[in-house]
Amino acid sequence: MTGLCADERAPGMTAPMRRSRDVPVLVAAARDGDPRAVARLVSLVEDGDPCLPELAAALAPHTGSAQLIGLTGSPGVGKSTLTNELVRAYRAQGLRVGVLAVDPSSPFTGGAILGDRVRMQDHATDPGVYIRSMSSRGHLGGLAGSTPQAVRVLEGAGCDVVLIETVGVGQAEVEVASLADTTLVLLAPGMGDAIQAVKAGILEVADVFVLNKADRDGIDAAARDIQGMIALGSRAPGQWRPLVVRTVAARAEGVEDVIAGIAKHRAFLQEHGQLTARRERRARVEVEEIALASLRVRIEAVRQGTALPELAAEVAAGRLDPYAAAATLLASLNP
Amino acid sequence: MTGLCADERAPGMTAPMRRSRDVPVLVAAARDGDPRAVARLVSLVEDGDPCLPELAAALAPHTGSAQLIGLTGSPGVGKSTLTNELVRAYRAQGLRVGVLAVDPSSPFTGGAILGDRVRMQDHATDPGVYIRSMSSRGHLGGLAGSTPQAVRVLEGAGCDVVLIETVGVGQAEVEVASLADTTLVLLAPGMGDAIQAVKAGILEVADVFVLNKADRDGIDAAARDIQGMIALGSRAPGQWRPLVVRTVAARAEGVEDVIAGIAKHRAFLQEHGQLTARRERRARVEVEEIALASLRVRIEAVRQGTALPELAAEVAAGRLDPYAAAATLLASLNP
Repeated sequence: MTGLCADERAPGMTAPMRRSRDVPVLVAAARDGDPRAVARLVSLVEDGDPCLPELAAALAPHTGSAQLIGLTGSPGVGKSTLTNELVRAYRAQGLRVGVLAVDPSSPFTGGAILGDRVRMQDHATDPGVYIRSMSSRGHLGGLAGSTPQAVRVLEGAGCDVVLIETVGVGQAEVEVASLADTTLVLLAPGMGDAIQAVKAGILEVADVFVLNKADRDGIDAAARDIQGMIALGSRAPGQWRPLVVRTVAARAEGVEDVIAGIAKHRAFLQEHGQLTARRERRARVEVEEIALASLRVRIEAVRQGTALPELAAEVAAGRLDPYAAAATLLASLNP
Repeated sequence: MTGLCADERAPGMTAPMRRSRDVPVLVAAARDGDPRAVARLVSLVEDGDPCLPELAAALAPHTGSAQLIGLTGSPGVGKSTLTNELVRAYRAQGLRVGVLAVDPSSPFTGGAILGDRVRMQDHATDPGVYIRSMSSRGHLGGLAGSTPQAVRVLEGAGCDVVLIETVGVGQAEVEVASLADTTLVLLAPGMGDAIQAVKAGILEVADVFVLNKADRDGIDAAARDIQGMIALGSRAPGQWRPLVVRTVAARAEGVEDVIAGIAKHRAFLQEHGQLTARRERRARVEVEEIALASLRVRIEAVRQGTALPELAAEVAAGRLDPYAAAATLLASLNP
């Protein structure tokens, strides 16, 4: 697998593969570690391509083993720098790493994420790293639906660890980051993050708080804020209590503590049978989103009503009853 | 057909028929003019009974010939009195008449409509009149969906004219009244109806404005208001220009002008090929409402999610992909 800066859409890709929808061929190539095939498959996911059900079926048997790590935090808090260091650390363990940088607020990839990716060029030539930005241009279930699909593509391509990074701490970003097994929330001193975190419901999804820029003034106050929030949160017996870890990602300080925190959280989930429960909850949301989106598409199609005039004429003439007409209409909309 | 005060739910009905869902038997009995069968069928429509698709299919061949007249206006304006007189006039022409009194604002029949019905006891012993109040307790498409079904029941029972009366001039009432071939809007002097009518979109649906209580002060001012509104309304060439008729329904004055206005409107529609177009537009709304309601029911069922945990476990384990799971889920919800 050749390292790739995601947004270049695999510059070495041949034109046929760049346009291909031949799912079996693409999946086989991705499983052989062909980065162009992986890029193409993520693009298909991103675009909500009609072949997605076929793709999902082809990938399903190869999924469920990668460790998924979510990472969110306000812009400027140091997410990309930390991601960079985490990639380095997991590579040092001999693991293959995928990074999905997700921007729920934008229908197109680019902007902040593209800028950030430049800083991650460290790994651009590492064949054990796959980095990809992703938006949700056409996927039925939005990013909550498309992110797990993109993760499956990376799993299918042999990634042992997938980092899902989002651009901010809004509701959507937090939702996407929480699709992981372990969700990291990055904070930095003096950014008012604690209040923001409470508002966005971060407390409920954070497994590890990473206090970055720990060499700055105010780090102790920020740590007290977070510890206070954690103490205030109600927690059922057997429920994980979020860790707080300090880092200076720019100097690679504390990264090993983050890695240890993630491992500790994963061990806790496994020990308490919660890893499976968490993945099933995620799958439930995913299936629900796809089903609801499919119904919403049909509602829109009914409202557009191109098939209606003919059916209505039959009903008005007494040749068809309205229930049968509605059933015919709905059947004609089946995906 | 024995005349019946609707809300008594056919006191002479035998217990088996009162509970029956045997659609072919009930439809055959209704077509023979058995008022208990008609009452039972309207109740099934009102309750959104699961047998409705079967009922609709059984009734479809017997429908499309009755003349449908909608009647709406503010409470106290004299709707029931006018309905009473219209029933009398159509009976004098030898026509069988059905009256559906519809209250969209209430999930149960009763209240104002029940009170009004007492005044219509004039026709309670007339075998050529069927009077029935109706609410929408369970029908998928709301009253816009159930009213046409109830109309079909009355058509199936041999009614030549069906009057659809609603309780007020809100959006829902106007919508239901406009399901007719000809929609009458009742106004009275000094009720501020003109303004109300504009707000509720009555101008767009009124075919005949009936200025009732024409013996009162202010009738000329009210007539000028309405004529002014009509003059202001934009009208395509070949489009009906609403008539204004004055009545004193309590003294049966002007009723023949209303009947003549309805006939004139019907002739206009037929002449311009608009009767079929109108009925097709109505059928379109009906089919659309049933289809949308069925999709909404499925969305609710997905949200309730009782089938989801099992599917989610399969997806989490990689034994099923999320699209296949969503398709299975949706298929399990089919009506």
